[in-house]
Amino acid sequence: MKIGILGTGSVGRTIGTAFIQTGHEVMLGSRSVTNEKAIAWVEANGINAQHGNFEDAAQFAELIFACFNGVFVTEVLKQAGAENFNNKIVIDVTNPLDFSNGMPPSLLSQYSNTWSLGEEIQQQLPGAKVVKALNTVTANLMVNAQLVNNAHHHLFICGNDVAAKNAVRELLAHNFHWNPEYILDFGSIQSARLTEGIVPFWVGAMQVLGTPMFNYLIVK
Amino acid sequence: MKIGILGTGSVGRTIGTAFIQTGHEVMLGSRSVTNEKAIAWVEANGINAQHGNFEDAAQFAELIFACFNGVFVTEVLKQAGAENFNNKIVIDVTNPLDFSNGMPPSLLSQYSNTWSLGEEIQQQLPGAKVVKALNTVTANLMVNAQLVNNAHHHLFICGNDVAAKNAVRELLAHNFHWNPEYILDFGSIQSARLTEGIVPFWVGAMQVLGTPMFNYLIVK
Repeated sequence: MKIGILGTGSVGRTIGTAFIQTGHEVMLGSRSVTNEKAIAWVEANGINAQHGNFEDAAQFAELIFACFNGVFVTEVLKQAGAENFNNKIVIDVTNPLDFSNGMPPSLLSQYSNTWSLGEEIQQQLPGAKVVKALNTVTANLMVNAQLVNNAHHHLFICGNDVAAKNAVRELLAHNFHWNPEYILDFGSIQSARLTEGIVPFWVGAMQVLGTPMFNYLIVK
Repeated sequence: MKIGILGTGSVGRTIGTAFIQTGHEVMLGSRSVTNEKAIAWVEANGINAQHGNFEDAAQFAELIFACFNGVFVTEVLKQAGAENFNNKIVIDVTNPLDFSNGMPPSLLSQYSNTWSLGEEIQQQLPGAKVVKALNTVTANLMVNAQLVNNAHHHLFICGNDVAAKNAVRELLAHNFHWNPEYILDFGSIQSARLTEGIVPFWVGAMQVLGTPMFNYLIVK
């Protein structure tokens, strides 16, 4: 499959490498084609790895990951071109974190409590099937659920398109070893308010635990 | 010990009954001494159970639980009298939930993201030792951690006074069967932003799971 990844930070590169390793074609998209991290990533990842601007990556892709810094959402999606997302699944991994007052972060006020980046992205890309997923765990755990507790821990997804959510569940199970029964469907994309809203807590927990390599197992 | 509970909702009454059953004296405080729920609770709970207004309960108590509706914090604490909290531990169980737009709730905007009820209560009661605790689980689980997964699940506390936090940890272990190793200290009362901020997610999870009787086990 052709996978486009918007954003060249550690999350985007980690997801990209994981898909290369499972035999897919990946294009990283960034603001500028001279992005040094993206160039180094392409060199390290062989012939199935490419790099372009946001529009190149969106056009190339059959499936798109949103991994950019949340504060730039409007700029990124404008560059990428909303029409290039029509009928495509967009897995939204972004978080609206504001580190400007130190650790732990708060949420960017415009994407907090009664609005979310997930909703914002769906609103800006009305032809896309946005599925919020993976934003509640650290990058290395996103791509290999077995790194913690033998994959017995939970992931939370939401989105307006049920078939798209089922496809994402299958994709995460097949490529990243998530146990499909541990992927909980929180309903429409409005629930991104909930799953983004727990990320400041996650950062605090990381500080308490001394590691980002953890997740929540819901027990009854 | 003499325990004062501010609020006569299901959380306050459940905590009150649990302390009666472990041999303590409890006074429920409410706005009016004609509060019917409180009167019925006193009748059901015997000679160690009392009821009064907020000021009565705060004066009576050696240890105070804040279990009122978060939106009324200023009114409740004014009635109770800040001087009646001096040098006392206040276990703050409140959440700033706003159900006015349906389920799941958002947070009351004035106590969301960059401010919290925990901080508000500590600010209004400068002589008290406020410890945020128990606000992330359902009432029956608060008072008996063994109802879920043999008490293997986590509670998150925070507050500015380390000795007070240790006393709360011991109290919860001794009276409510919480495993002290599973009570994670998130630091100062500022972290109430984090532990209150995950409660809308909790409500969403309750809807997905079909029960409030669950909690998070952090796995590494």
